[in-house]
Amino acid sequence: MKAKSPSESRCIKTEIVLPNDTNTLNNLRGGKLLHWIDIAGAIACHRHCGRVVVTAAVNNVAFEHPIRLGDIVTFEAEVSRAFSTSMEVIIDVSIESAKDRETMTNTAIYTFVAVDQLGNPIEVPPLEPETDKQKERYKAALRRRQLSLIIAGKMKPDEATELKALFFPK
Amino acid sequence: MKAKSPSESRCIKTEIVLPNDTNTLNNLRGGKLLHWIDIAGAIACHRHCGRVVVTAAVNNVAFEHPIRLGDIVTFEAEVSRAFSTSMEVIIDVSIESAKDRETMTNTAIYTFVAVDQLGNPIEVPPLEPETDKQKERYKAALRRRQLSLIIAGKMKPDEATELKALFFPK
Amino acid sequence: MKAKSPSESRCIKTEIVLPNDTNTLNNLRGGKLLHWIDIAGAIACHRHCGRVVVTAAVNNVAFEHPIRLGDIVTFEAEVSRAFSTSMEVIIDVSIESAKDRETMTNTAIYTFVAVDQLGNPIEVPPLEPETDKQKERYKAALRRRQLSLIIAGKMKPDEATELKALFFPK
Amino acid sequence: MKAKSPSESRCIKTEIVLPNDTNTLNNLRGGKLLHWIDIAGAIACHRHCGRVVVTAAVNNVAFEHPIRLGDIVTFEAEVSRAFSTSMEVIIDVSIESAKDRETMTNTAIYTFVAVDQLGNPIEVPPLEPETDKQKERYKAALRRRQLSLIIAGKMKPDEATELKALFFPK
Amino acid sequence: MKAKSPSESRCIKTEIVLPNDTNTLNNLRGGKLLHWIDIAGAIACHRHCGRVVVTAAVNNVAFEHPIRLGDIVTFEAEVSRAFSTSMEVIIDVSIESAKDRETMTNTAIYTFVAVDQLGNPIEVPPLEPETDKQKERYKAALRRRQLSLIIAGKMKPDEATELKALFFPK
Amino acid sequence: MKAKSPSESRCIKTEIVLPNDTNTLNNLRGGKLLHWIDIAGAIACHRHCGRVVVTAAVNNVAFEHPIRLGDIVTFEAEVSRAFSTSMEVIIDVSIESAKDRETMTNTAIYTFVAVDQLGNPIEVPPLEPETDKQKERYKAALRRRQLSLIIAGKMKPDEATELKALFFPK
Repeated sequence: MKAKSPSESRCIKTEIVLPNDTNTLNNLRGGKLLHWIDIAGAIACHRHCGRVVVTAAVNNVAFEHPIRLGDIVTFEAEVSRAFSTSMEVIIDVSIESAKDRETMTNTAIYTFVAVDQLGNPIEVPPLEPETDKQKERYKAALRRRQLSLIIAGKMKPDEATELKALFFPK
Repeated sequence: MKAKSPSESRCIKTEIVLPNDTNTLNNLRGGKLLHWIDIAGAIACHRHCGRVVVTAAVNNVAFEHPIRLGDIVTFEAEVSRAFSTSMEVIIDVSIESAKDRETMTNTAIYTFVAVDQLGNPIEVPPLEPETDKQKERYKAALRRRQLSLIIAGKMKPDEATELKALFFPK
Repeated sequence: MKAKSPSESRCIKTEIVLPNDTNTLNNLRGGKLLHWIDIAGAIACHRHCGRVVVTAAVNNVAFEHPIRLGDIVTFEAEVSRAFSTSMEVIIDVSIESAKDRETMTNTAIYTFVAVDQLGNPIEVPPLEPETDKQKERYKAALRRRQLSLIIAGKMKPDEATELKALFFPK
Repeated sequence: MKAKSPSESRCIKTEIVLPNDTNTLNNLRGGKLLHWIDIAGAIACHRHCGRVVVTAAVNNVAFEHPIRLGDIVTFEAEVSRAFSTSMEVIIDVSIESAKDRETMTNTAIYTFVAVDQLGNPIEVPPLEPETDKQKERYKAALRRRQLSLIIAGKMKPDEATELKALFFPK
Repeated sequence: MKAKSPSESRCIKTEIVLPNDTNTLNNLRGGKLLHWIDIAGAIACHRHCGRVVVTAAVNNVAFEHPIRLGDIVTFEAEVSRAFSTSMEVIIDVSIESAKDRETMTNTAIYTFVAVDQLGNPIEVPPLEPETDKQKERYKAALRRRQLSLIIAGKMKPDEATELKALFFPK
Repeated sequence: MKAKSPSESRCIKTEIVLPNDTNTLNNLRGGKLLHWIDIAGAIACHRHCGRVVVTAAVNNVAFEHPIRLGDIVTFEAEVSRAFSTSMEVIIDVSIESAKDRETMTNTAIYTFVAVDQLGNPIEVPPLEPETDKQKERYKAALRRRQLSLIIAGKMKPDEATELKALFFPK
């Protein structure tokens, strides 16, 4: 399979927070944000592999700023690394506040798997990072993968060479 | 503040997968599952602290089994550890397949923060684990917290004593 | 078919009232509450008979307390009596007020029918009540059934022996 | 307060069953039907009293015919009797089948209460039935009310003179 | 095919604006209004031709009055002209204000196409207007059609005889 | 007020068609498409004027290609002309077919009005088109505005100089 660049998978999605999307504090509720991130990530992965993709894991999402009723939220998703049948995708979230017009940013990391009609995993094209930012995210993706394999008990901490380097930088 | 047990926060939530909730493969879409987990986790944290709570982070969710149209999904959430203003909550997900009546299980970990009327964080009661399972989860919560502080660049790997023990068990 | 106990059908479902669920008074709107009760009842009936079930009737629902934005609502459903192809299910609704932390309760009664792939009714297992409360509800279910048959013009008041006893207790 | 006729409260509402509204059998799910009936009934009661109204009870709904994806459903609601602060409303449901163009009908009965800004019940105008059908429904509404008061333990069977006549017609 | 009258296609649909339907100003959001109009128009066209219909164009919708939370909105749709496989439908929108009980009206124009199982256009019955209002709308529909053909570059302005008459009334 | 360029208002929004969004033919239903276009247009207008905006009119939407379950739909909205308090926005819709990976495009035109807290119209900055395409759309916007004023009976055909040029090009 021919390698593809992260920018070929790029997906932009913009939303405005409506009353329908809020919690009892009039802020965007967590579940709706997770849904929007999920859609943006799925489209980026679909663009990378051209197949139906399903959510395999939410690796990390941190909600540092409350997002308020009327705020505009932009999601920019790009595949950060492709493994044999799965893809890690990073979704950058930026918030234009309706109140003070300040802009805040945040980052989420999801993993998707490409599947055939019966739902069985199928191979995806390799990813070749181009910019420095893409290369850095590509490298970190391996550490994150080792970490989640350890957490799931599928890898011994000893084998996680990339991850160990984090604790013992030479 | 008086300490509370994890079972006082316990929340059970059961859902059936309707066409409204599915993706193009007729399976439950990731965003909807994340929403249901979010609600179950929020209710458990609310029961622990008696305050409005907001989602602070999704620490880990892995979708190992596709959940199909018509399946029944049960969420059992219990606070696993309380920090000063935040709570880690573990949501056990079990799936009763409509097709083959087999039951599968899965686990998600979220963090919520208690807030006042203005959205500012406020203190929550301590948590005192009782059963062996609760004690084990309580301990692991600290490791997870150190890990996320490192990932966010707010803690040096050296300081993460609990986490280092994972790589260098004595 | 082997008889089953009501507790085998037990379904617990917890929800929090979001802006999405409210009417113009900021209370839970009736239609949403009826939907949640419907899901909880359907899951209990599904657990009793292991088949697809469809709503056959709403026998009684009384909304005595307004349920407010932010309140937590818990539904506990248990099959109260099985007839040849239908099941009466009682759903106990309890409300934890976000405002004054008072708890109120309410009860709804629905009937579901088990159906095959084509939507035709199929037989369900008998129900054997165990506790006193379950036995009392089992007995009352027959009176309710006679009453709805009379209302539908399918039974003569004379034949409703159980119901007549209500007016002329010996 | 000046009495009003049932036709002044009349509300017509038409819907088409979309995939969004179906259960796993591709039929309209019970909860959605109950929601549509609730809206039609609320509008009729609002037109009768000109105040905010809230659902007080679902007195009876029977689902005799499955309603299929693509079917058109028409709701015709009319207040059947006004009590001091509450109104009984009858909603006639007719279904135009997309498949065989047959039309089926069904009937639901709800009770709404008029409330002020604070949610306290307030008086509604009396209802004066005009046609024979309206008069018959008006009379039956009293029997239904006595029945629900008995069920709720708020009236002794002896006092339910209208209802007793059903069992002992002279 | 036998001609039908506009009144045979008539569809009435009534809605109440809930928090779920509003924008950040507590008014009905445009997208929801367009959805309700779409459903009312689709049902009228379905009643005219007895086939599945799909939205082909929104010809004109003007939102002159804000519609507020709690307002009741009534849609009255009637086919205004049938072409070979398409139908123009006019949807009259009237708003009963919850606040001042004033009634405002508005008009929307959509076009639907009748399709078979595979989504291919199929012929619809001719429409024969009866009342003066129906005849006037029938005539204007041709001008609107010529206009949209010009805009789409499928008709030369010269050929649009009906439309030119608008600018050069004899 | 300082003039702004169309590209400063640019909004990109990407969606994937889920079962939740479909009609009985498994295609995207018209109402949902109109909602997505409305959101994309509203965000572009909000970015132009920095104020709350409300939908004033749908000037034209033509659905030339069915959009199928699983298709990816991208909306690119840019303000095409600003009048005193209103903005015309053009939304280009492109569809990536999940089936044959073909791409189709379509165009919608909406008008939004900027409003203050009370819902009263307020002035917006002028728009200065830069590219040839933007200039062409800017010019056509005036013709469309004259046309809708004539249709609404607020302008005499004689006065619509821009529009008449369409029928009598010199």
